[in-house]
Amino acid sequence: MSGESCSLRPVGVVRSQVKEPADAPRQGRDAGLVVRVEIFPEFLPALEGLVPGQRVVMVCWFHRADREALRVRPRGDLSLPVTGVFNTRSPNRPNPLALHTAEILAIDGGTLTLKGVDAVDGTPVLDIRPHVPRLDG
Amino acid sequence: MSGESCSLRPVGVVRSQVKEPADAPRQGRDAGLVVRVEIFPEFLPALEGLVPGQRVVMVCWFHRADREALRVRPRGDLSLPVTGVFNTRSPNRPNPLALHTAEILAIDGGTLTLKGVDAVDGTPVLDIRPHVPRLDG
Repeated sequence: MSGESCSLRPVGVVRSQVKEPADAPRQGRDAGLVVRVEIFPEFLPALEGLVPGQRVVMVCWFHRADREALRVRPRGDLSLPVTGVFNTRSPNRPNPLALHTAEILAIDGGTLTLKGVDAVDGTPVLDIRPHVPRLDG
Repeated sequence: MSGESCSLRPVGVVRSQVKEPADAPRQGRDAGLVVRVEIFPEFLPALEGLVPGQRVVMVCWFHRADREALRVRPRGDLSLPVTGVFNTRSPNRPNPLALHTAEILAIDGGTLTLKGVDAVDGTPVLDIRPHVPRLDG
Protein backbone atom coordinates (compact mmCIF):
# COMPACT_ATOMS: atom_id res chain seq x y z
CA MET A 1 0.00 0.00 0.00
CA SER A 2 2.52 2.54 -1.14
CA GLY A 3 2.65 5.23 -3.78
CA GLU A 4 -0.43 5.88 -5.86
CA SER A 5 -2.42 3.02 -4.39
CA CYS A 6 -2.87 4.65 -0.98
CA SER A 7 -4.19 7.93 -2.33
CA LEU A 8 -7.90 8.52 -2.30
CA ARG A 9 -9.49 9.99 -5.40
CA PRO A 10 -12.51 12.17 -4.65
CA VAL A 11 -15.22 11.33 -7.19
CA GLY A 12 -17.47 14.23 -6.20
CA VAL A 13 -18.43 16.71 -3.51
CA VAL A 14 -21.36 17.24 -1.13
CA ARG A 15 -23.36 20.46 -1.40
CA SER A 16 -25.25 20.99 1.86
CA GLN A 17 -26.99 23.75 3.75
CA VAL A 18 -24.86 22.69 6.72
CA LYS A 19 -21.62 24.65 6.52
CA GLU A 20 -19.94 23.79 9.83
CA PRO A 21 -19.55 20.43 11.62
CA ALA A 22 -20.99 21.96 14.81
CA ASP A 23 -24.25 22.65 12.96
CA ALA A 24 -24.67 19.11 11.64
CA PRO A 25 -27.27 16.85 13.25
CA ARG A 26 -25.71 13.85 15.00
CA GLN A 27 -26.86 11.47 12.30
CA GLY A 28 -28.21 12.61 8.95
CA ARG A 29 -30.51 9.66 8.72
CA ASP A 30 -32.27 10.70 11.91
CA ALA A 31 -32.62 14.22 10.62
CA GLY A 32 -33.54 13.18 7.07
CA LEU A 33 -31.17 15.86 5.84
CA VAL A 34 -31.28 16.39 2.07
CA VAL A 35 -28.07 17.23 0.22
CA ARG A 36 -26.88 17.48 -3.35
CA VAL A 37 -23.93 15.41 -4.50
CA GLU A 38 -22.01 16.64 -7.52
CA ILE A 39 -20.14 13.81 -9.24
CA PHE A 40 -17.11 14.98 -11.21
CA PRO A 41 -17.48 14.62 -15.02
CA GLU A 42 -14.84 11.90 -15.44
CA PHE A 43 -16.81 9.59 -13.11
CA LEU A 44 -20.25 10.02 -14.73
CA PRO A 45 -20.13 6.58 -16.42
CA ALA A 46 -19.97 5.02 -12.93
CA LEU A 47 -23.49 6.36 -12.15
CA GLU A 48 -25.14 4.37 -14.95
CA GLY A 49 -28.09 2.32 -13.74
CA LEU A 50 -28.75 4.20 -10.48
CA VAL A 51 -32.38 5.34 -10.17
CA PRO A 52 -34.46 7.55 -7.85
CA GLY A 53 -35.98 5.63 -4.96
CA GLN A 54 -32.90 3.43 -4.64
CA ARG A 55 -31.08 3.20 -1.33
CA VAL A 56 -27.33 3.56 -1.44
CA VAL A 57 -24.34 3.63 0.86
CA MET A 58 -22.27 6.75 0.19
CA VAL A 59 -18.73 6.90 1.52
CA CYS A 60 -17.29 10.34 2.25
CA TRP A 61 -14.05 11.65 3.71
CA PHE A 62 -14.45 13.82 6.80
CA HIS A 63 -11.69 16.18 5.75
CA ARG A 64 -12.00 18.25 8.93
CA ALA A 65 -11.69 15.33 11.36
CA ASP A 66 -9.00 14.91 14.02
CA ARG A 67 -7.03 11.88 12.82
CA GLU A 68 -4.89 11.64 15.96
CA ALA A 69 -7.73 10.76 18.35
CA LEU A 70 -7.54 7.10 19.47
CA ARG A 71 -9.69 7.32 22.62
CA VAL A 72 -12.77 9.54 22.95
CA ARG A 73 -15.93 10.12 24.94
CA PRO A 74 -18.85 8.94 22.73
CA ARG A 75 -20.78 11.91 21.37
CA GLY A 76 -18.54 14.21 23.45
CA ASP A 77 -20.74 13.37 26.45
CA LEU A 78 -18.74 14.04 29.62
CA SER A 79 -20.95 11.60 31.56
CA LEU A 80 -19.76 8.69 29.39
CA PRO A 81 -16.43 6.91 29.96
CA VAL A 82 -13.56 7.28 27.52
CA THR A 83 -13.39 4.41 25.02
CA GLY A 84 -11.41 3.44 21.92
CA VAL A 85 -12.45 5.16 18.69
CA PHE A 86 -12.95 1.76 17.01
CA ASN A 87 -15.72 1.21 19.59
CA THR A 88 -17.46 4.44 18.53
CA ARG A 89 -18.90 6.10 15.43
CA SER A 90 -16.94 9.29 16.12
CA PRO A 91 -15.92 11.22 12.98
CA ASN A 92 -12.49 11.64 14.58
CA ARG A 93 -10.48 8.51 13.77
CA PRO A 94 -7.26 7.50 11.95
CA ASN A 95 -9.10 7.16 8.63
CA PRO A 96 -12.13 9.47 8.85
CA LEU A 97 -14.35 7.58 6.43
CA ALA A 98 -18.02 8.44 6.77
CA LEU A 99 -20.67 5.90 5.73
CA HIS A 100 -24.12 7.25 4.91
CA THR A 101 -27.10 5.04 4.13
CA ALA A 102 -29.27 7.34 2.03
CA GLU A 103 -32.11 7.40 -0.46
CA ILE A 104 -31.74 8.79 -3.96
CA LEU A 105 -34.50 11.38 -4.44
CA ALA A 106 -33.41 12.57 -7.88
CA ILE A 107 -30.64 12.27 -10.46
CA ASP A 108 -29.95 15.07 -12.94
CA GLY A 109 -26.83 14.38 -14.98
CA GLY A 110 -24.01 14.25 -12.47
CA THR A 111 -26.05 15.77 -9.64
CA LEU A 112 -27.72 13.44 -7.16
CA THR A 113 -30.21 14.58 -4.54
CA LEU A 114 -29.86 12.33 -1.49
CA LYS A 115 -31.87 12.11 1.72
CA GLY A 116 -30.13 11.09 4.94
CA VAL A 117 -26.62 12.56 4.78
CA ASP A 118 -25.08 14.54 7.66
CA ALA A 119 -21.98 15.76 5.80
CA VAL A 120 -21.09 19.45 5.68
CA ASP A 121 -20.82 21.46 2.50
CA GLY A 122 -17.62 20.66 0.62
CA THR A 123 -17.18 17.13 1.98
CA PRO A 124 -15.32 14.94 -0.56
CA VAL A 125 -17.27 11.94 -1.86
CA LEU A 126 -15.28 8.72 -2.33
CA ASP A 127 -17.81 6.09 -3.32
CA ILE A 128 -21.47 5.20 -3.87
CA ARG A 129 -22.83 1.64 -3.87
CA PRO A 130 -26.27 0.02 -3.68
CA HIS A 131 -27.47 -0.69 -0.13
CA VAL A 132 -27.98 -4.43 0.35
CA PRO A 133 -29.82 -5.14 3.63
CA ARG A 134 -28.59 -8.76 3.69
CA LEU A 135 -24.98 -7.51 3.70
CA ASP A 136 -25.21 -4.11 5.38
CA GLY A 137 -28.00 -4.73 7.85
CA MET B 1 -8.07 17.21 0.30
CA SER B 2 -4.40 17.58 -0.51
CA GLY B 3 -1.14 16.49 1.07
CA GLU B 4 -1.27 14.34 4.17
CA SER B 5 -5.05 14.48 4.48
CA CYS B 6 -5.71 12.31 1.42
CA SER B 7 -3.40 9.50 2.45
CA LEU B 8 -4.89 6.44 4.07
CA ARG B 9 -3.16 5.04 7.12
CA PRO B 10 -3.48 1.26 7.43
CA VAL B 11 -4.27 0.45 11.06
CA GLY B 12 -3.82 -3.30 10.66
CA VAL B 13 -3.81 -6.23 8.27
CA VAL B 14 -6.07 -9.22 7.53
CA ARG B 15 -4.64 -12.72 7.99
CA SER B 16 -6.79 -15.14 5.99
CA GLN B 17 -6.61 -18.65 4.60
CA VAL B 18 -7.69 -17.09 1.31
CA LYS B 19 -4.55 -16.02 -0.52
CA GLU B 20 -5.91 -15.01 -3.94
CA PRO B 21 -8.96 -12.89 -4.88
CA ALA B 22 -10.13 -15.67 -7.25
CA ASP B 23 -10.39 -18.05 -4.28
CA ALA B 24 -12.52 -15.71 -2.13
CA PRO B 25 -16.23 -16.44 -1.74
CA ARG B 26 -18.41 -13.74 -3.29
CA GLN B 27 -19.41 -12.38 0.09
CA GLY B 28 -17.69 -13.34 3.33
CA ARG B 29 -20.87 -13.00 5.28
CA ASP B 30 -22.53 -15.67 3.19
CA ALA B 31 -19.57 -17.96 3.65
CA GLY B 32 -19.09 -17.11 7.33
CA LEU B 33 -15.37 -16.90 6.63
CA VAL B 34 -13.25 -16.48 9.76
CA VAL B 35 -10.12 -14.32 9.60
CA ARG B 36 -7.63 -12.82 12.00
CA VAL B 37 -7.05 -9.08 12.03
CA GLU B 38 -3.74 -7.83 13.39
CA ILE B 39 -4.00 -4.26 14.60
CA PHE B 40 -0.68 -2.41 14.57
CA PRO B 41 0.70 -1.56 18.05
CA GLU B 42 0.29 2.21 17.76
CA PHE B 43 -3.47 1.80 17.25
CA LEU B 44 -4.14 -0.57 20.17
CA PRO B 45 -5.73 2.17 22.32
CA ALA B 46 -8.43 2.52 19.65
CA LEU B 47 -9.64 -1.05 20.37
CA GLU B 48 -10.56 -0.29 23.98
CA GLY B 49 -14.12 -1.33 24.83
CA LEU B 50 -14.67 -3.77 21.97
CA VAL B 51 -15.84 -7.19 23.18
CA PRO B 52 -16.42 -10.68 21.70
CA GLY B 53 -19.95 -11.14 20.42
CA GLN B 54 -20.12 -7.56 19.19
CA ARG B 55 -20.95 -6.86 15.54
CA VAL B 56 -18.73 -4.39 13.76
CA VAL B 57 -18.26 -2.82 10.37
CA MET B 58 -14.67 -3.23 9.23
CA VAL B 59 -13.39 -1.10 6.38
CA CYS B 60 -10.54 -2.50 4.29
CA TRP B 61 -8.66 -1.39 1.20
CA PHE B 62 -8.79 -3.82 -1.72
CA HIS B 63 -5.20 -3.15 -2.68
CA ARG B 64 -5.40 -5.48 -5.69
CA ALA B 65 -8.49 -3.86 -7.25
CA ASP B 66 -8.69 -2.28 -10.69
CA ARG B 67 -9.28 1.41 -9.92
CA GLU B 68 -9.88 2.40 -13.57
CA ALA B 69 -13.09 0.39 -14.03
CA LEU B 70 -16.15 2.68 -14.25
CA ARG B 71 -18.60 0.28 -15.94
CA VAL B 72 -18.74 -3.46 -15.24
CA ARG B 73 -20.89 -6.56 -15.55
CA PRO B 74 -22.15 -7.35 -12.03
CA ARG B 75 -20.36 -10.39 -10.59
CA GLY B 76 -18.60 -10.79 -13.95
CA ASP B 77 -21.75 -12.48 -15.25
CA LEU B 78 -21.79 -12.21 -19.06
CA SER B 79 -25.58 -12.61 -19.09
CA LEU B 80 -26.00 -9.34 -17.16
CA PRO B 81 -25.85 -5.92 -18.83
CA VAL B 82 -22.94 -3.58 -18.23
CA THR B 83 -23.71 -0.99 -15.54
CA GLY B 84 -21.91 1.78 -13.64
CA VAL B 85 -19.65 0.63 -10.80
CA PHE B 86 -21.54 2.90 -8.36
CA ASN B 87 -24.57 0.69 -9.11
CA THR B 88 -22.64 -2.45 -8.09
CA ARG B 89 -20.70 -3.87 -5.16
CA SER B 90 -17.75 -4.74 -7.41
CA PRO B 91 -14.37 -4.56 -5.67
CA ASN B 92 -13.07 -2.76 -8.76
CA ARG B 93 -13.90 0.96 -8.31
CA PRO B 94 -12.13 4.33 -8.09
CA ASN B 95 -11.70 4.00 -4.31
CA PRO B 96 -11.70 0.24 -3.57
CA LEU B 97 -13.03 0.47 -0.03
CA ALA B 98 -14.44 -2.82 1.25
CA LEU B 99 -17.09 -2.79 3.96
CA HIS B 100 -17.51 -5.97 6.00
CA THR B 101 -20.21 -6.47 8.59
CA ALA B 102 -18.67 -9.06 10.88
CA GLU B 103 -18.88 -10.57 14.34
CA ILE B 104 -16.01 -10.44 16.82
CA LEU B 105 -15.33 -14.01 17.95
CA ALA B 106 -12.28 -13.23 20.08
CA ILE B 107 -9.86 -10.46 21.02
CA ASP B 108 -6.32 -11.26 22.16
CA GLY B 109 -4.25 -8.11 22.55
CA GLY B 110 -4.10 -6.56 19.10
CA THR B 111 -5.41 -9.68 17.33
CA LEU B 112 -9.12 -9.90 16.54
CA THR B 113 -10.82 -13.02 15.25
CA LEU B 114 -13.71 -11.98 13.01
CA LYS B 115 -16.43 -14.01 11.30
CA GLY B 116 -17.83 -12.81 7.98
CA VAL B 117 -14.91 -11.23 6.10
CA ASP B 118 -14.09 -12.08 2.47
CA ALA B 119 -10.75 -10.26 2.28
CA VAL B 120 -7.60 -12.04 1.12
CA ASP B 121 -4.50 -12.44 3.25
CA GLY B 122 -2.55 -9.19 3.47
CA THR B 123 -5.50 -6.86 2.92
CA PRO B 124 -4.91 -3.50 4.68
CA VAL B 125 -7.43 -2.62 7.40
CA LEU B 126 -8.49 1.03 7.58
CA ASP B 127 -11.18 1.17 10.23
CA ILE B 128 -13.41 -0.73 12.64
CA ARG B 129 -16.65 0.65 14.10
CA PRO B 130 -19.66 -0.79 15.94
CA HIS B 131 -22.47 -1.97 13.69
CA VAL B 132 -25.63 0.02 14.36
CA PRO B 133 -28.66 -1.57 12.62
CA ARG B 134 -30.63 1.69 12.81
CA LEU B 135 -27.91 3.45 10.81
CA ASP B 136 -26.42 0.66 8.72
CA GLY B 137 -29.46 -1.51 8.10
